[in-house]
Amino acid sequence: MADDNQDYWIGFDLGGTKMLAVVYDHKFKPLGKARKKTKGSEGMEAGLKRINAVINEALDDADVSAKQVKGLGIGCPGPLNLKKKLIRTAPNLGWENVPIGESIEKEFGFPVTVANDVDAGVFGEYQFGAGKGKRCVVGIFPGTGIGGGCVYEGKLFRGANCSCMEIGHISVLPGGAIDGANNHGSLESVASRLTIAGQSALAAYRGQAPHLMNKAGTDISNIRSGALSDSVKKGDQAVKKIVEDACEYLAVSVATVVHLLAPDVIVFGGGLIEAMPDVMLPEIQKQAQKKILPALRDVYEIVEAELGDDAGVMGAAALAKQAVEESNK
Amino acid sequence: MADDNQDYWIGFDLGGTKMLAVVYDHKFKPLGKARKKTKGSEGMEAGLKRINAVINEALDDADVSAKQVKGLGIGCPGPLNLKKKLIRTAPNLGWENVPIGESIEKEFGFPVTVANDVDAGVFGEYQFGAGKGKRCVVGIFPGTGIGGGCVYEGKLFRGANCSCMEIGHISVLPGGAIDGANNHGSLESVASRLTIAGQSALAAYRGQAPHLMNKAGTDISNIRSGALSDSVKKGDQAVKKIVEDACEYLAVSVATVVHLLAPDVIVFGGGLIEAMPDVMLPEIQKQAQKKILPALRDVYEIVEAELGDDAGVMGAAALAKQAVEESNK
Repeated sequence: MADDNQDYWIGFDLGGTKMLAVVYDHKFKPLGKARKKTKGSEGMEAGLKRINAVINEALDDADVSAKQVKGLGIGCPGPLNLKKKLIRTAPNLGWENVPIGESIEKEFGFPVTVANDVDAGVFGEYQFGAGKGKRCVVGIFPGTGIGGGCVYEGKLFRGANCSCMEIGHISVLPGGAIDGANNHGSLESVASRLTIAGQSALAAYRGQAPHLMNKAGTDISNIRSGALSDSVKKGDQAVKKIVEDACEYLAVSVATVVHLLAPDVIVFGGGLIEAMPDVMLPEIQKQAQKKILPALRDVYEIVEAELGDDAGVMGAAALAKQAVEESNK
Repeated sequence: MADDNQDYWIGFDLGGTKMLAVVYDHKFKPLGKARKKTKGSEGMEAGLKRINAVINEALDDADVSAKQVKGLGIGCPGPLNLKKKLIRTAPNLGWENVPIGESIEKEFGFPVTVANDVDAGVFGEYQFGAGKGKRCVVGIFPGTGIGGGCVYEGKLFRGANCSCMEIGHISVLPGGAIDGANNHGSLESVASRLTIAGQSALAAYRGQAPHLMNKAGTDISNIRSGALSDSVKKGDQAVKKIVEDACEYLAVSVATVVHLLAPDVIVFGGGLIEAMPDVMLPEIQKQAQKKILPALRDVYEIVEAELGDDAGVMGAAALAKQAVEESNK
């Protein structure tokens, strides 16, 4: 039940398949939530209406009115124009130049903060999770691609009117395979969950991964993090080797990040890491230490994300609060 | 002639071969300077005395007394402990745990700010040169090694109690040659002035670089930036190719920096760049654009450093001023 003397904040996560809104009280305790499928294929106009409907449902669930809300933060895929609160292009949704901030502000009246979805997740881990209160936190999230974000001295590190930390696109293996942006040898091309699934499907097809073959077959769409983790744990040596190779490339990216930014904490998250943290994190750490200058080996630590799927939506709400407080200064 | 109503600042550049002190007025106009050879081999104690002597000479030259000085900034080689104002280790000088801040403060009474020498140079370019007033400036300086620095929203981007932006040590060619830290395939190992000199010496020896052979021979110590530039301009195709290959690796590092930080400006400096900016900068730019995500290709520009050797000493003085102003807040 809402208290009129409190501030309320909304976090929104706009994903490729689902959208989620959560209403928080001033202590970021969740009071109510709602979710729907995103249905990008129905078009942008329909999508913006669905977003508003989800916000209304979450408010209803929390028993909070729009007037009591101080701000909403929304984590979005794709390159953004932060100033104009636009999604420039969301390839997963098929939408272009989405005036998402304006649309929500017009409907509800409270200020909207637009953020990159990975940035929102990293900010969530900084505020409430594995990077709590640290001076410099870098997040690395291997999934279909590999997302990254950085919180430096309490704020998202940002590019010129854009988000940055596109860690999946840095080069780690010149001449390597192509990634989703047609670049060769990017981190994403050699270490994303999708790449690992692809290489593991080959291994299964060749008879090198019987457990994986048994559980998920050779269709990449079916080879999810859980199946990969099971395969490694049940003894598919080829899949274990593929995962270790991916860890070595992730370690190259860790070394690059440490050499450039010397962060206090690198938070690893995403389904693959969550499915086998004990396999991957020590391997990444071991390989990274070999690649880092001695003077920088003791300045950072590698930790597992703590908030799972909540990181993005909590982080988005916290970013909204920070933006409103900044604008009131 | 000094004016009692003004603030005076000192910039100090502690190099491997020479040390330089400059006294500035409140508008950062140089009033006097002094320099000496560093003579690292005479030991740390002797070195600290020489530093104080150079400061005294610069004060004398400027006709300013130590009491009129608000602060001194010193750019130092090697990994530092910024809080304790120590040089942890200066391999070029053979000194360890150098209490450089304390030593100067004790002698003169004004506050000392210790900075990494490349950081000081980048801060100089940010305050007074090619990156003036930009939100995010990254400097890349290929020399014997390859130094880097970043000024973000008016301040040096720093690691946990250390400087960072060790761009020379990021991996760009797995399996490449070793660098000065015994790492394989770092940017430094494939694109430093020293590496270019080494490869060009081979080319000269093989008869592929007659102009270079004629001017500098095959001793790497003699193959300086000027000789390399002459060789390229006079038509040594092998040296031109070596320089272009180095530019391609520098472009990899530019792409990494843009993907991670999306800076407004990347300032390239150092002797090699100064000797042939028209050869190198367009090549770096062209190669980098191919490697950068389309959404980030228009956010940054590559520019040549403007201040040359003055950047470090001016930047150090400006850092001292910033530190004093911060501490007075």
